[in-house]
Amino acid sequence: MASADDLAFASITELAPRLAAKEVSPVELTEAMLARIERHDPDLNAYITVTADSARHAARAAEAAIMAGHALGPLHGIPVALKDLYATRGVATTYGSPLFADWVPDFDGAAVERLKRAGAVILGKTNLHELAYGTTSANAHYGPVRNPWRRDHHPGGSSGGSAAAVAAGLAYAAMGSDTGASIRQPAACCGIVGIKPTFGRVSKFGALPLSWSQDHVGPLTRTVADAALLMQALAGFDPRDPTSVDRPVPDFGADLDKGVRDTRIGVVRGFFFDDCDPEIVGAVDVAIRVLEDQGARIDELELADMDAAYAAGVITIAVEGAAYHAADLRARPELFSDELRAAFQLGSFYQATDYVQAQRLRRHLIDQVGREMAGFDAVVMPTAPIPPTPIAANPPGHAMLRPRNTMPFNALGLPAISVPCGFTTAGLPIGLQIAGHAFAEAMVLRIARAYEHATDWRRTPPL
Amino acid sequence: MASADDLAFASITELAPRLAAKEVSPVELTEAMLARIERHDPDLNAYITVTADSARHAARAAEAAIMAGHALGPLHGIPVALKDLYATRGVATTYGSPLFADWVPDFDGAAVERLKRAGAVILGKTNLHELAYGTTSANAHYGPVRNPWRRDHHPGGSSGGSAAAVAAGLAYAAMGSDTGASIRQPAACCGIVGIKPTFGRVSKFGALPLSWSQDHVGPLTRTVADAALLMQALAGFDPRDPTSVDRPVPDFGADLDKGVRDTRIGVVRGFFFDDCDPEIVGAVDVAIRVLEDQGARIDELELADMDAAYAAGVITIAVEGAAYHAADLRARPELFSDELRAAFQLGSFYQATDYVQAQRLRRHLIDQVGREMAGFDAVVMPTAPIPPTPIAANPPGHAMLRPRNTMPFNALGLPAISVPCGFTTAGLPIGLQIAGHAFAEAMVLRIARAYEHATDWRRTPPL
Repeated sequence: MASADDLAFASITELAPRLAAKEVSPVELTEAMLARIERHDPDLNAYITVTADSARHAARAAEAAIMAGHALGPLHGIPVALKDLYATRGVATTYGSPLFADWVPDFDGAAVERLKRAGAVILGKTNLHELAYGTTSANAHYGPVRNPWRRDHHPGGSSGGSAAAVAAGLAYAAMGSDTGASIRQPAACCGIVGIKPTFGRVSKFGALPLSWSQDHVGPLTRTVADAALLMQALAGFDPRDPTSVDRPVPDFGADLDKGVRDTRIGVVRGFFFDDCDPEIVGAVDVAIRVLEDQGARIDELELADMDAAYAAGVITIAVEGAAYHAADLRARPELFSDELRAAFQLGSFYQATDYVQAQRLRRHLIDQVGREMAGFDAVVMPTAPIPPTPIAANPPGHAMLRPRNTMPFNALGLPAISVPCGFTTAGLPIGLQIAGHAFAEAMVLRIARAYEHATDWRRTPPL
Repeated sequence: MASADDLAFASITELAPRLAAKEVSPVELTEAMLARIERHDPDLNAYITVTADSARHAARAAEAAIMAGHALGPLHGIPVALKDLYATRGVATTYGSPLFADWVPDFDGAAVERLKRAGAVILGKTNLHELAYGTTSANAHYGPVRNPWRRDHHPGGSSGGSAAAVAAGLAYAAMGSDTGASIRQPAACCGIVGIKPTFGRVSKFGALPLSWSQDHVGPLTRTVADAALLMQALAGFDPRDPTSVDRPVPDFGADLDKGVRDTRIGVVRGFFFDDCDPEIVGAVDVAIRVLEDQGARIDELELADMDAAYAAGVITIAVEGAAYHAADLRARPELFSDELRAAFQLGSFYQATDYVQAQRLRRHLIDQVGREMAGFDAVVMPTAPIPPTPIAANPPGHAMLRPRNTMPFNALGLPAISVPCGFTTAGLPIGLQIAGHAFAEAMVLRIARAYEHATDWRRTPPL
């Protein structure tokens, strides 16, 4: 029998058959994860709350179900983590902010429900950028999350704790949320996979809003196949989320291994490559050649007005965030960090007509990009223009640059994934972003899987 | 054979069988309408453009189809008018504004396409409040529309020309649009029927936006059965309108004559009855007793926060309108009337967070009103708090009061109809508004039909 700790960096698809075959038990996996969290998390600060007792309870129940020969869910007995932005019944839910320090919800968010229904064991709640508005996860109240690849560097954000936990073998997968970068950029920074689904594909019920017209929730995983597995568990209509879309959910695994031989992939130079770190551009150019070698047809493609999509996204988050938190900003401003107070203040400076123009622009660009991408299955570019930066320094400009390549796909609502595609000479991970047509997550996953299959960037950080 | 002019005030459901039976011809009906327009419209100013030639052409084609025994559309050979807010191929489309004085579109709006497909003959384009933003139709550029019941009074607005034309026998039905009042209030002011469908039910493609999150298009007719007939022709998904809802269209005529014996109707006192003209309250109270006599269960019902729904609607129109017209307001301010320029200026004063709060409020109120109305089939109240006022005077306050009872159903997106329910002692029509659950137009029409059937308020104005 394998040691569960040896399996700390396994993927879910590697584990599932071994769990079913009783080679490894949910209890062993969970104990190993809890032990690893105890050992490594004081250093990484990936978790805000570890729910050891309820995880052990769930693991024992999962083990009993296996022993009893019950039908098993697709995530049966798999220990996973939740960004501390999902309401969890009976478990503190802080949103990374003292505003919610004492909140213990009496209900589970939709994603939590669905993961539990699929059999997952919840290990705890991960640290995040305060109120999910930022890209470093340097949380002023709960301390900065540290990048498993270099502890003095940030892990990206806002789902930095989720990314660090998955990368460091402190969870087999984790839920994130993404309003401008927050799943994909930390996935890129930590060398793992993160997918932001199409707007409306996964219910946000019970996840703290930042900008409800651009908020998305989705998983961070070690492999693309695991991302497909979690998407399958998560996707589907939920009337409790007003932005949820009632649309059939495909089998995300069906075409996963079909390769890219019959696909056409657009490379969008200009906006997405300008001002990028040269090492990142180099790694992404190599990645594009790998896709070509695998049989994909690669063509340059121009997407006009991506700068406008980015700007519309920035305005939308600032305004909707300021509106959502308006009452607390007035009544309890001291419970926001200086950074967040300033960010929301910026949102309150915009005129209503500016906001409305941004929304008109988004609607227009959704149509325009749909036309421009016709004939292409996906577009590729660096996930983040710059690698993780030191926690100690936060140079001005970085806050605007980090979400630059991811934000347009929030403004447009299109699915996008980040897969590891190399490392900088400083040893920090680089991510390749693959974005597709609305509701075409299956194609995005398939291309990502083909790339992952042809490369070997799934690595273990030096812990 | 009946004289077509004798039939000028017939309903479409009365005409259709006579057209099919060749008792009356589309050419006769069209010629009679054109003659009546020529005789009466110089006085009423209901039309901006009369398309006599193309109407005659369409009427001859419709007649030939009848003679050839072709299958006939539900509006076959029926002369109708379009608010001059619908794009019409080859026909000037002014939106009641000099901004568009020279615009001749090369396409038809969706409603125009659908009416033509149903067999309707288009008589022309009706006058409206400038850019559809106002409730008097006292158009500074194209002259005021006059109320057929009292020429020195306004006909309501913004679809005042459509309402006046249908009331005066210058069209058998007409298209309007309604962002806060603009179908129902002029219908009430002119003693006819007007229905604002559920948001998204009828495509707005090719109709000038004022406030796209609250804009609705729909018909003005002489009878409720005609409204159902037009709704059947108009309703249905259209991918060219981003707010169009892909949802099955019921048979609006199926239950039309079922009466109200098994219905429960809420009377919402307070907000909707406060500050109403006493004669209007009196007429509506009588109308409610009529519904009760017909077997409806009548109960008082409280809808909280209707003042907030109204305010959210007002802010939303002002901001979205100002955003839509922003470029022209900057570049060609002299092409707006003082009234419109001031109205849009107001919209540009709001903060983005105010607008976003208004949208959050709307979303919240949609859920809240849905809950409050559970167990009720519809709610009833006066369509307009005040009767039509003199064109010469425009007392301050009236502009806010006129759309008060209609605006909340734009903010909430719920279907609402106005049916005639009496006259003031000054001889001006009064309207009863019946509003229902989302996508329950059939129920709203059924209650309206039962009321209409039990009363006799379909009258001919003194021309």
